[in-house]
Amino acid sequence: MILQSIVDLVAICAKKGIENAILSPGSRCAPLTLAFARHPEIHARTISDERSAAFIALGMAQQLDHPVALVCTSGSAALNYYPAIAEAFFQQVPLLILTADRPAEWIDQYDGQTIFQTDVYGKHVKGSFQLPDTGNNPDQLWHSSRIVNEAINLANQFPPGPVHINIPLREPFYPEKDEELNFSENPRIFDLLKSKTQPTDESLIKLKSRLEIVQRILIIPGQQLPDQHLQSLLNQLSKNQKAVIVTDTISNLQSDQTITLHDHWLGNPEISKNLKPDLIISFGKSIISKSLKLFLRNTHASHWHIQADGKAKDTYQRLTRNIAASPVYFLNWLNQNLVVQNPEYYLAWQSLEKAVSMNLTTLLESETFGEYTALAYCLNKTPLVSKIHVANSMAVRYLNLLGKREQEISCNRGTSGIDGSNSTAVGCTFTTKEIVTLITGDMAFFYDRNAFWHNYSIPNLRIILLNNHAGGIFRLIDGPKNQPELEEYFETKQKLTAQHLATEFGFFYSKVVNQEELEASLTDFYSDSLHPKILEIETESKSNADLLKRIKERAAEALNGK
Amino acid sequence: MILQSIVDLVAICAKKGIENAILSPGSRCAPLTLAFARHPEIHARTISDERSAAFIALGMAQQLDHPVALVCTSGSAALNYYPAIAEAFFQQVPLLILTADRPAEWIDQYDGQTIFQTDVYGKHVKGSFQLPDTGNNPDQLWHSSRIVNEAINLANQFPPGPVHINIPLREPFYPEKDEELNFSENPRIFDLLKSKTQPTDESLIKLKSRLEIVQRILIIPGQQLPDQHLQSLLNQLSKNQKAVIVTDTISNLQSDQTITLHDHWLGNPEISKNLKPDLIISFGKSIISKSLKLFLRNTHASHWHIQADGKAKDTYQRLTRNIAASPVYFLNWLNQNLVVQNPEYYLAWQSLEKAVSMNLTTLLESETFGEYTALAYCLNKTPLVSKIHVANSMAVRYLNLLGKREQEISCNRGTSGIDGSNSTAVGCTFTTKEIVTLITGDMAFFYDRNAFWHNYSIPNLRIILLNNHAGGIFRLIDGPKNQPELEEYFETKQKLTAQHLATEFGFFYSKVVNQEELEASLTDFYSDSLHPKILEIETESKSNADLLKRIKERAAEALNGK
Repeated sequence: MILQSIVDLVAICAKKGIENAILSPGSRCAPLTLAFARHPEIHARTISDERSAAFIALGMAQQLDHPVALVCTSGSAALNYYPAIAEAFFQQVPLLILTADRPAEWIDQYDGQTIFQTDVYGKHVKGSFQLPDTGNNPDQLWHSSRIVNEAINLANQFPPGPVHINIPLREPFYPEKDEELNFSENPRIFDLLKSKTQPTDESLIKLKSRLEIVQRILIIPGQQLPDQHLQSLLNQLSKNQKAVIVTDTISNLQSDQTITLHDHWLGNPEISKNLKPDLIISFGKSIISKSLKLFLRNTHASHWHIQADGKAKDTYQRLTRNIAASPVYFLNWLNQNLVVQNPEYYLAWQSLEKAVSMNLTTLLESETFGEYTALAYCLNKTPLVSKIHVANSMAVRYLNLLGKREQEISCNRGTSGIDGSNSTAVGCTFTTKEIVTLITGDMAFFYDRNAFWHNYSIPNLRIILLNNHAGGIFRLIDGPKNQPELEEYFETKQKLTAQHLATEFGFFYSKVVNQEELEASLTDFYSDSLHPKILEIETESKSNADLLKRIKERAAEALNGK
Repeated sequence: MILQSIVDLVAICAKKGIENAILSPGSRCAPLTLAFARHPEIHARTISDERSAAFIALGMAQQLDHPVALVCTSGSAALNYYPAIAEAFFQQVPLLILTADRPAEWIDQYDGQTIFQTDVYGKHVKGSFQLPDTGNNPDQLWHSSRIVNEAINLANQFPPGPVHINIPLREPFYPEKDEELNFSENPRIFDLLKSKTQPTDESLIKLKSRLEIVQRILIIPGQQLPDQHLQSLLNQLSKNQKAVIVTDTISNLQSDQTITLHDHWLGNPEISKNLKPDLIISFGKSIISKSLKLFLRNTHASHWHIQADGKAKDTYQRLTRNIAASPVYFLNWLNQNLVVQNPEYYLAWQSLEKAVSMNLTTLLESETFGEYTALAYCLNKTPLVSKIHVANSMAVRYLNLLGKREQEISCNRGTSGIDGSNSTAVGCTFTTKEIVTLITGDMAFFYDRNAFWHNYSIPNLRIILLNNHAGGIFRLIDGPKNQPELEEYFETKQKLTAQHLATEFGFFYSKVVNQEELEASLTDFYSDSLHPKILEIETESKSNADLLKRIKERAAEALNGK
């Protein structure tokens, strides 16, 4: 039998611009599977492990800035989506989650795959809907189509995020032999028009009068997609020495005008005490740098956060104003209304940036082989027009220490888990022909090995695997490194290599243990290929910790007297 | 600093009989990790992938019938536990879930690993607690110890299940160099004494008068652990021809007195129409057999369900009485109070059982090589005193078709997912020196490959992998097999083999593609070993479907005229 509500659901998705669906196999979800697979304007892929499926969808939606549909069967399948859904919620990535379910009367009756799916994602979705469970009555079709429209609108509305529709389905749900799915050309659509929010004139006058008395302005962009318009507004503020722009790698707003190497000096109280701002202006999502956070928390500055809608976060414990406007609108206004220049403050930051920048390359080249130096070398060989997905834990910290990148950077900083970075990178490769480099550690890599368990070609994926056979980060933070449990319970020492996995999934693989091998391997790592490539950089957790410490100290020497 | 509330928590766990903890690495959970790792009476193991960690704990608790503690860090780690927690909830397996969290003021502030952990498992835990977040004030220590006692009592109270304690932890949480954890010999304990519930005399009189007018009684035990006492009560009822006992493989109550091959004939309306009961008596959890469920739903019988506490399920749509008593109490009473014998009804079932039983072995031996016949052969070689964990989808269905087993059987039939069967089997091996055989298909096996990502020795594990390179079940059910999307979106065809995984994790591996190879491989498959062994039985999804159909038809022939 054909369930028209499900056919309409897919037609509405297509009409509202959803071009991609990630399906996971199952019987209960068959009507959804068939409708997505058969819709001519939607590219449907199937991924068996729902945990990976959801991170793949996240990786696609991150890039597309538009919802990707996720379809799974009833039962625990929906729960395997959950880590990626929480990541999407906190990272503000739109997803349309469609979970097939049994009709209500069959839940919790010891019969087949059921859990309590209604509202199962709790506070980690923007909205949660239940589709009516028999879908061919006109009022129910109206209800269903309304829900689908509302759900997609909500996923897209700022701040974007995941939205869940639970879909009870009653047998029979396979079409008969000659039944064809009839996608309406004009399904019921209602759109949410884009709107803008901006401060009233009165509010702007207040802000302006406040600006007249501040001297030292720091602008801190959080994680976001690259944005040329924002970039030029920020560059202009910096060039005119009106504000200092401190950009972490995940801001995608690094330029010659912005500070990118702050992690090298903000932990030094002697230096940072002279850099304290009067006013912090932030927009976007989270930042990476712990030393920047601690530095900002330790000021007496006011903090204005700019976002069009939603609850502001008080990351620096200094929040004074939540300004409901788009960052472009606000920075435009700021460029026009901020008159005070502060060359001294500007130069204080810029001279530190220059000092580290001039020193760091030589310093890295002069040092021994380890994951820090090897990664720096790899990044210099990475195509400028390409994308980097970086895993949590040490990989993203190294990247942030290494300063300005031309490439677009993504990282799952919503929940900062190590759980789905391979899959997120795979999702990214589904959206682009550019090279996608995944930079990851062994824990994150092996955690998400099912990312590669599918039949789709991902020739543009390159994986730089920093394998220290342990959660090396635990040796770099103060507490665990002194505990006798370090190796078994924190680092969880392990012998694994990616070699077997590479053979299994048909990836090119090379392993390097020194600089010569690294250089040799990189000569054609980024050349065109029919298969993904893994470059495994094998190092020792203990010597990596020493290396990081040494470079930190030597970089600090260059700052003496600054 | 030492958080005494956490040290006390672990001391209370030990005192209340929790002997096993599965930890996952993290920094926020360090005080819990250290306390569990250092407690002399608790065996703590560390598993990096939290999804596997939770299923391993489930596999242990299934066997031990006592809670296993789970410890993870803050953020998405807790969400990776969720599939196993839902399974534990519906399968009624006790777990104590301890999730480290940031203190409340740091949640959702763009700072590190946070999600909304309070009550995150919704309806899928028996209880959800929040530990006070600074734990050295006497009132807070009292509060903490009360929560831990309550949580463990609740996890054990019938019906057992998972209980969650969310634990906000404030830095510093590593002990100083000379600080030692001080586990109290006598932590605050309050126990919940075991109690019993049974019908009043008045209720029993009613039940007895009802028994006098029923002729045909079917007893259907659901999933449960082996129980000698129950077994002998059931055997007695059957031997006296007072009731017919129909036992699926997961009931662990199969005997010469019980019906075990019902799946071969209950789908045949000609045969089953003569077998309909007046009264269904059930206890335990779910059953496997779809034909048994449909048969029971299609009767006019009354249905009494026996369980000491909790909501009854109306699996057969015939529920008339929920009897709050232990199955042992009730079956004892039944043996004494049921006087009507019905040899005719008893023999009708027994003659069918005998007919199939006599025929099936010959039939399987005469058939071609395929997963059905190969599995039957393997099971004949499996040590009688050993445990079998069987994965969902086809593996458990084959097992149920093959009738009586001596081995203890476990299967995740709470949510019937394919997601954690490897890990559950690994958990089982942690509790026993007996051989543990995991019977699984390729989808379930590759889904949960991280089950083996740890450093613990599991030499008693044997894996029988039915690899048909697809979700073969979709070819066996009517709807999908006729859709053009069958191979890509339902079966999700794949080329994988377990060989690489075996090399990676140091397992012995053999692959067989015909009967001769199977016989050769099985000669020492069950011999002692330092490493786990995988026997990969490679077959074709299409010919498996034909084989199953043929055996079904040929078995049915033997029943002609019955």
